[in-house]
Amino acid sequence: MGEAREALAMASTPSPPPGSSLTPPKIPFDLHVANREKLLKSIRSHLSDSSRPPQGFVLLQGGEEKNRYCTDHTELFRQESYFAYLYGVREPGFYGAIDIATGNSILFAPRLPAEYAVWLGEIKSLSHFKERYMVSMIYYTDEIAQVLCDQYGGSGKPLLFLLHGLNTDSDNFSKPAEFQGMEKFDTDLTTLHPILTECRVLKSDLELAIIQFANDISSEAHVEVMRKTRVKMKEYQLESMFLHHTYMYGGCRHCSYTCICATGGNGAVLHYGHAAAPNERILEDGDMALLDMGAEYHFYGSDITCSFPVNGKFTSDQTLIYNAVLEAHNAVISSMKPGVNWIDMHKLAEKTILESLKKGSILVGDVDDMMAKRLGAVFMPHGLGHFMGIDTHDPGGFLKNLQRMERPKEPGLKSLRTIRDLKEGMVITVEPGCYFIDALLTPALESSNTSKFFNQETIGRFKSFGGVRIESDLHVMANGCKNMTKCPRETWEIEAVMSGAPWPLEKTATNSANGKG
Amino acid sequence: MGEAREALAMASTPSPPPGSSLTPPKIPFDLHVANREKLLKSIRSHLSDSSRPPQGFVLLQGGEEKNRYCTDHTELFRQESYFAYLYGVREPGFYGAIDIATGNSILFAPRLPAEYAVWLGEIKSLSHFKERYMVSMIYYTDEIAQVLCDQYGGSGKPLLFLLHGLNTDSDNFSKPAEFQGMEKFDTDLTTLHPILTECRVLKSDLELAIIQFANDISSEAHVEVMRKTRVKMKEYQLESMFLHHTYMYGGCRHCSYTCICATGGNGAVLHYGHAAAPNERILEDGDMALLDMGAEYHFYGSDITCSFPVNGKFTSDQTLIYNAVLEAHNAVISSMKPGVNWIDMHKLAEKTILESLKKGSILVGDVDDMMAKRLGAVFMPHGLGHFMGIDTHDPGGFLKNLQRMERPKEPGLKSLRTIRDLKEGMVITVEPGCYFIDALLTPALESSNTSKFFNQETIGRFKSFGGVRIESDLHVMANGCKNMTKCPRETWEIEAVMSGAPWPLEKTATNSANGKG
Repeated sequence: MGEAREALAMASTPSPPPGSSLTPPKIPFDLHVANREKLLKSIRSHLSDSSRPPQGFVLLQGGEEKNRYCTDHTELFRQESYFAYLYGVREPGFYGAIDIATGNSILFAPRLPAEYAVWLGEIKSLSHFKERYMVSMIYYTDEIAQVLCDQYGGSGKPLLFLLHGLNTDSDNFSKPAEFQGMEKFDTDLTTLHPILTECRVLKSDLELAIIQFANDISSEAHVEVMRKTRVKMKEYQLESMFLHHTYMYGGCRHCSYTCICATGGNGAVLHYGHAAAPNERILEDGDMALLDMGAEYHFYGSDITCSFPVNGKFTSDQTLIYNAVLEAHNAVISSMKPGVNWIDMHKLAEKTILESLKKGSILVGDVDDMMAKRLGAVFMPHGLGHFMGIDTHDPGGFLKNLQRMERPKEPGLKSLRTIRDLKEGMVITVEPGCYFIDALLTPALESSNTSKFFNQETIGRFKSFGGVRIESDLHVMANGCKNMTKCPRETWEIEAVMSGAPWPLEKTATNSANGKG
Repeated sequence: MGEAREALAMASTPSPPPGSSLTPPKIPFDLHVANREKLLKSIRSHLSDSSRPPQGFVLLQGGEEKNRYCTDHTELFRQESYFAYLYGVREPGFYGAIDIATGNSILFAPRLPAEYAVWLGEIKSLSHFKERYMVSMIYYTDEIAQVLCDQYGGSGKPLLFLLHGLNTDSDNFSKPAEFQGMEKFDTDLTTLHPILTECRVLKSDLELAIIQFANDISSEAHVEVMRKTRVKMKEYQLESMFLHHTYMYGGCRHCSYTCICATGGNGAVLHYGHAAAPNERILEDGDMALLDMGAEYHFYGSDITCSFPVNGKFTSDQTLIYNAVLEAHNAVISSMKPGVNWIDMHKLAEKTILESLKKGSILVGDVDDMMAKRLGAVFMPHGLGHFMGIDTHDPGGFLKNLQRMERPKEPGLKSLRTIRDLKEGMVITVEPGCYFIDALLTPALESSNTSKFFNQETIGRFKSFGGVRIESDLHVMANGCKNMTKCPRETWEIEAVMSGAPWPLEKTATNSANGKG
């Protein structure tokens, strides 16, 4: 362990600049006021279009704290995402309503027992929550039925619009609110979900600002990790450095998802890093690292992947694969704007990668023919990107009522989490990758359909290469898109940063010259 | 934020020694072989004592990975604790059996779909798991009924001993295993839980070694945090430093529990740090910090609290309260040995604290009278300590079939998580505390029962003091106990470490002299 110990000692040397250039922003709770107003407008317009009365209540149930199995170990609570979108409430056990007739928003807080003050902290007054969360009214959760009946101005049973719909990434349904006294209400389980989901798809400026911060602190943390990565470290040490930077300097207590810190052959495992394949390999000289890590700030996330050689210098093979992916990443970003279809972007990425692999003598033959045989999916079996926001895989990718919403069946395309046309305000990841995955390569090499495309002499060299993924978060704007992620992407930028250069690089003649290298 | 920024820059200066003196130990899977053998012996002996045949199977269901609400966000999986105890399996979806007649241990692994290899990593062979987890046999989970029927040597339906019993900390019941084909078996829901729980109460040497490592890395991390704590930091930055140290150098991906980083008045909130009261206060000059944080290594945890002034120097009031708690901590540890009852230890801690508060002119009157009026519970409403192991609050505190197992009703005592006599092999926390909790102090000051004990002139000074807790993990041994926690405890030790001294302190004349200071 002598060498590893030395690597660790080096890693703890502070790198310039120390700490961070960022400060966690103040939480803008008016963000959620705006989210509620957007939903209200949307649902009123929908009701009007379908000649239904603009009456009733949207009612959502917030998340509950959970114990681990039978024990009293409580998992750190993170609010359910739809509830977070509308109310921004960080505490468990709340409900929230919106009165469609009046536009009033109502929060219902749990009534806490007196001993809460001893064990869990001050019992906040209702007015504290009313002010913090900027709602029109606040009551206790045991008053829901009474309050909503009292507020209702129409005739007959009041109608509740409850959240019930399919999450097309998990195939799970959201759970509609339940409370004492529900039998006094009529319920509508179909209207709310698609409307609220579509509200989440198109981000407001306030939401974008938070996503930008999550991106900024995560980009900075990726740079820190690159700088401190050393041969003989363990993969989880890269994870630890990322988590520490984003929490220490960004106040990000949650990550958007479990960190993927894959090095060497592990880079070919798309969702590496989970409990059964934890980040525990030792980094070896010559490895590529593929780090997919993003912090979350006030519910809004980031989703960023950087790939780089752990020793700080790209080999020619690493450069070949890396640049194949980078070209795809850049080609897609250059083409993105409202109206562009996501399947086309996926295919553009595939084609760009295949062309590079052909240029690099890994593949031979006609690229259009490769595309027709879906060869791209052998190297990139996952989709090009997904909506991102309060969930890493934000919902709305396959919304009902939208055209062309049948999932494709072809390899690669069937993994797409959306196939929609881009719209202004979407935030979507662009994450092309090129992997050498035994479970896909072996059949492709044996198949009469695809074996002819492989240069048998070169492909063997890449068997244990792992993979490269480059992932940025893109904001679709009126005339194009904005890359919210600010990591070094060119090979020479990565090499410079890893050898101690500040980031962003200072723009000098030298750097431009390097750009040609 | 200028001042805070400066504090952060200071905090990132490496402190001597850099990194850590520790290395994560290799996982001893024979630990779980020994755990299974212990259970087998126990259950056979129980069956023999009750004249039942030594036949049938212990069957446990391991934990499953969980999604967050309706999304595909998977929480980082952590094995269910009883299953972890017997098998040490880190992957979700397993079952495990022990054949009581033959002593064979059998694991059942989930049959993974081919696409797992692309997304989640290599599909490991059954023999891989058999070897890793050192079991006699391994099959797939869809073979449970068949395998157990085939293995059964007795007549009639084979009997399954399933895990079903009350967790006396959460009041939840463990969920007995369920599987396809259960109707072919008889089930016993009452025998296993108390026997297996009692196995967990008394730790083996292999278990103790892992708990010791969790303590060592956590103790070291506490020292690091003390050293790097600065006025104007945020509480969560202390949490982040702790988490980083234990993961970076100790390979501890999980914490035993959500970190409590309470400063100033927050020190009076016993379970501060959860989502509704996150560690987000700014540290102010003159604050005490109360940091309750412990890392977990290979399922086994640690549970450690350090209290110290954030500016590195104890005031006289802080010294008074701190030493009151430290004396209680030390008095209990000096008295602990097999046969000693835990209620007596709790009362010893209370009495020691009350005596110090009287000496410090915060209280007046007869300490025995205070004890009779349960005044101790105003200052320490929680129990003195709890079993610790694979769960932070390890089960077995109020086991059925044991004497004196009625929960006390009196304040303070009713919060005890166990009231048992100590036994060799137990690991139990000793965590006396002294808090100034409005919700308890105000009624006590007003009550005719207790108001006479307060020195009204001094008590006011402590209204926003917060609290002090000192918590160590103790291993009960044949002739006493061993403190597994290695943090600076004396005020002068803390001040020395916070001003840069190495830990452990070098034994010099100067230090001994300081000891008198």
